[in-house]
Amino acid sequence: MTLEEARNNLKTLQEKMSAYEHALGLLYYDGVTGAPKGTAANRGQTMGVLSEELYKLTTGRETVELLEFLDQHKAELDEKEQRMVFLLLKNIRQMQKIPMDEYIAHEKMIVEAEDAWHTAKEENNFPLFEPYLERIFADARKFAGYCAPGKDPYDYWLNEFEEGLNKERADEFFATLRAHIVPLLQKVCAAPQVDTAILKGHFPEAQQDALSRRLMNVMGLDPLHVGLSTTEHPFTTSLGSHLDERITTHYYEDDFASSLYSVIHEGGHALYDTGSDDSLAYTVLDGGVSMGIHESQSRFYENLLGRSRAFCDYLFPVLAEIFPEQMAGHNAEELYKALNKAEPSLIRTEADELTYCLHVMVRYELEKAVMAGRLAVHDLPAAWNRLYKEYLGVDVPDDRRGVLQDSHWSGGAVGYFPSYALGSAYGAQFLKKMRESVDVNGCLRRGDFGPINDWNRQHIWQYGSLYLPGRLFEMAAGEPFDPTVYTDYLEEKFSDLYGL
Amino acid sequence: MTLEEARNNLKTLQEKMSAYEHALGLLYYDGVTGAPKGTAANRGQTMGVLSEELYKLTTGRETVELLEFLDQHKAELDEKEQRMVFLLLKNIRQMQKIPMDEYIAHEKMIVEAEDAWHTAKEENNFPLFEPYLERIFADARKFAGYCAPGKDPYDYWLNEFEEGLNKERADEFFATLRAHIVPLLQKVCAAPQVDTAILKGHFPEAQQDALSRRLMNVMGLDPLHVGLSTTEHPFTTSLGSHLDERITTHYYEDDFASSLYSVIHEGGHALYDTGSDDSLAYTVLDGGVSMGIHESQSRFYENLLGRSRAFCDYLFPVLAEIFPEQMAGHNAEELYKALNKAEPSLIRTEADELTYCLHVMVRYELEKAVMAGRLAVHDLPAAWNRLYKEYLGVDVPDDRRGVLQDSHWSGGAVGYFPSYALGSAYGAQFLKKMRESVDVNGCLRRGDFGPINDWNRQHIWQYGSLYLPGRLFEMAAGEPFDPTVYTDYLEEKFSDLYGL
Repeated sequence: MTLEEARNNLKTLQEKMSAYEHALGLLYYDGVTGAPKGTAANRGQTMGVLSEELYKLTTGRETVELLEFLDQHKAELDEKEQRMVFLLLKNIRQMQKIPMDEYIAHEKMIVEAEDAWHTAKEENNFPLFEPYLERIFADARKFAGYCAPGKDPYDYWLNEFEEGLNKERADEFFATLRAHIVPLLQKVCAAPQVDTAILKGHFPEAQQDALSRRLMNVMGLDPLHVGLSTTEHPFTTSLGSHLDERITTHYYEDDFASSLYSVIHEGGHALYDTGSDDSLAYTVLDGGVSMGIHESQSRFYENLLGRSRAFCDYLFPVLAEIFPEQMAGHNAEELYKALNKAEPSLIRTEADELTYCLHVMVRYELEKAVMAGRLAVHDLPAAWNRLYKEYLGVDVPDDRRGVLQDSHWSGGAVGYFPSYALGSAYGAQFLKKMRESVDVNGCLRRGDFGPINDWNRQHIWQYGSLYLPGRLFEMAAGEPFDPTVYTDYLEEKFSDLYGL
Repeated sequence: MTLEEARNNLKTLQEKMSAYEHALGLLYYDGVTGAPKGTAANRGQTMGVLSEELYKLTTGRETVELLEFLDQHKAELDEKEQRMVFLLLKNIRQMQKIPMDEYIAHEKMIVEAEDAWHTAKEENNFPLFEPYLERIFADARKFAGYCAPGKDPYDYWLNEFEEGLNKERADEFFATLRAHIVPLLQKVCAAPQVDTAILKGHFPEAQQDALSRRLMNVMGLDPLHVGLSTTEHPFTTSLGSHLDERITTHYYEDDFASSLYSVIHEGGHALYDTGSDDSLAYTVLDGGVSMGIHESQSRFYENLLGRSRAFCDYLFPVLAEIFPEQMAGHNAEELYKALNKAEPSLIRTEADELTYCLHVMVRYELEKAVMAGRLAVHDLPAAWNRLYKEYLGVDVPDDRRGVLQDSHWSGGAVGYFPSYALGSAYGAQFLKKMRESVDVNGCLRRGDFGPINDWNRQHIWQYGSLYLPGRLFEMAAGEPFDPTVYTDYLEEKFSDLYGL
């Protein structure tokens, strides 16, 4: 094999991997959007076969030989190729450690678990989901043991979702957040509450759909390459490459803000993915590098921009055009205040910016305890309710609005949640840096996301997964990670809002 | 390899094939339903990779050795396995006879031909499509020569779409139809026309969607396993197995009957597919056996049942419930007459039950003449127009509504059309036989498709592709094929409708 042949084979390998991932991603997407309800097992059968083929392709002898050859010629490869080889080899070395039959059984189980979770949530029936959740945590521990023997299994997964993260750092990070947010929230709760009358009323799905499409357009999402659909739980996925991106939302006719901010949040993910340089398509470098950086973009658009006073100045007239009766007699300042009402609540995805990280903290503490064997899955609902009382002061009335609310565990993701809080904090530092060269407030008031997107594309998006998240963060933020930038931002915003 | 191992490998091979076909089918389905408009190239990239993988799987050395081993042990296989091996080997032996480079060139040409046809139809520009159509007919002749040297090429293709069919039989079949339909149509045209006022008005898409779902339910389509979506051209597809079936329709707000009968037609295809015995899932025997039998089911539900007086008695109150204003002052008999208005027209897919087969006959005669070298592709438009005048008495105003109207040729399918007419005729004999044990009219009046579906499942659907179409037909109909049963049915129905 010449080096030239090997480089071509590296390209072909990644194109094939992208094709299988496209098929698997579309099968999942279809399952939660248009597929008839009784087709999960049929889909699971196909996903099982294709996962196995992808597994063989990714870890097969030919691939290993190719990558080891390229690894030996590292010095002759360009920066992108070096990172491709590194990521592919890392994946192989992990995959080789998981017995194939266990991996396939896990993939099949997850398809059924998602189905069970949907039904369990609908019927408020945790025991229905419990055996799957048992297996999900057991597999998480077992696979971590295979991939990183000797390493703490939860540390393994934290690092999987955010390279460089472990329990020690996460504990410290959450302690900082807690030290600032909890007293701030207490002051907010003691102050007179804001009026949210502007958010109340009946908002027909068809108009909300029009609002979604209007917002996607304003955000700069290309309708030729980004689709919108509805699902129980909003999410974003790339299909095949960043050239086909899908976001989803969920409409509630008595609450337009829920879908509105889902669309902006998922739109932020989609902007990040679709902002990859086109040369990265059909390679492992295509799309976002880590969950933390991903959430830094989604929560950046959702909160730092989307819930700012400047953006509300732009948003209110749009809402008044789409919901003229409901908005009559209201104004942009009322909208800003209502959208930022801070109060302890039950549902993470509907939480305000201030309390959001406390919701994440509950999940972090619970995952940590289950992974350490200190908490049984059977006791999760009770522990969940206890922590909600402790951190947020609320009583959880049922598991639907408690331990069953999120889809992450049912999809097999343990260790994902902390990245939401990390991303929120990253974003505050990006915004601080962006303001040095971009008139962010002016852009938001005009509904002109161009300069904001250009900054993000130049400093973050274009690189896809080329740089480690820590390096990318420092390149873009121009300084080391410092969560007090975020807590300062929260303190300033909410002190102003509540006249503290 | 032991026989037991080989049997297991046969099962695994078909499971893998089903998985690739599921992915490819879903990619196509996504492309015509939810995908953003700019994603075709991205999807093409993935479909190219997966098609190549499927081709390698289906025709690879390992597969050939397996099938040849099983073929040598044919006597020890059960009936289903024998048929599986036969169908899989048949496919391979054909593929082996076509030089790979010519096959790939053909596949590429077809992709361009479909594009050219779309544009040509839009722009009413036959010369744009002509060079592709030349190649399509040339390839059809050439590939038939490779696969069945010495056999008449059009006979080869007729047999491909309906095992057992050839020109001699088709000529005889169409001659019978023509001898009965042409004079009947002349009498109908001379009689006073029926009033179609009941079909006119504005029918909002949301209500039409409700009607579709109501009808699917009445037809006995299992909503857990059959989905409905909208596309430019309605179609039906199985994804992975008969356990996940999708039908599509197209809504026109000034014409509820168009979508209504698309849904019933595609619903007939879906009933047939989903009626396969569950043991056939993930094998090549899953789903319908031939285009003729498939159309016998879709056109059975659409016309023989769906456009019957008895079903209109059930349908009218349903329509009056969904479209109360539009149906006010009308009744079931008016509906029956309007839905069965017969008149010569230009477009096959919109033709009534009486004239439909004449449209098919035009295409049959033209394909036959081109394949025999008696007609040049260049002269197809003129010949098309001449035959429409001769058979239907209409003047074709342009090629868009003439020779360019159907997508079949642009997709490379030569010899497909006769199955539409054959299916219609098969259905009449199935109905005759069914009436011996089922009170069909009583069922239709009550909207109770249970006994009708049970009969079809027992006699047709459950077998999937196990039996040759000819054998399956005779098993179900209980007599040899006789198209006069169909022409008798047409004569009786339309004589009554038009008071002849």
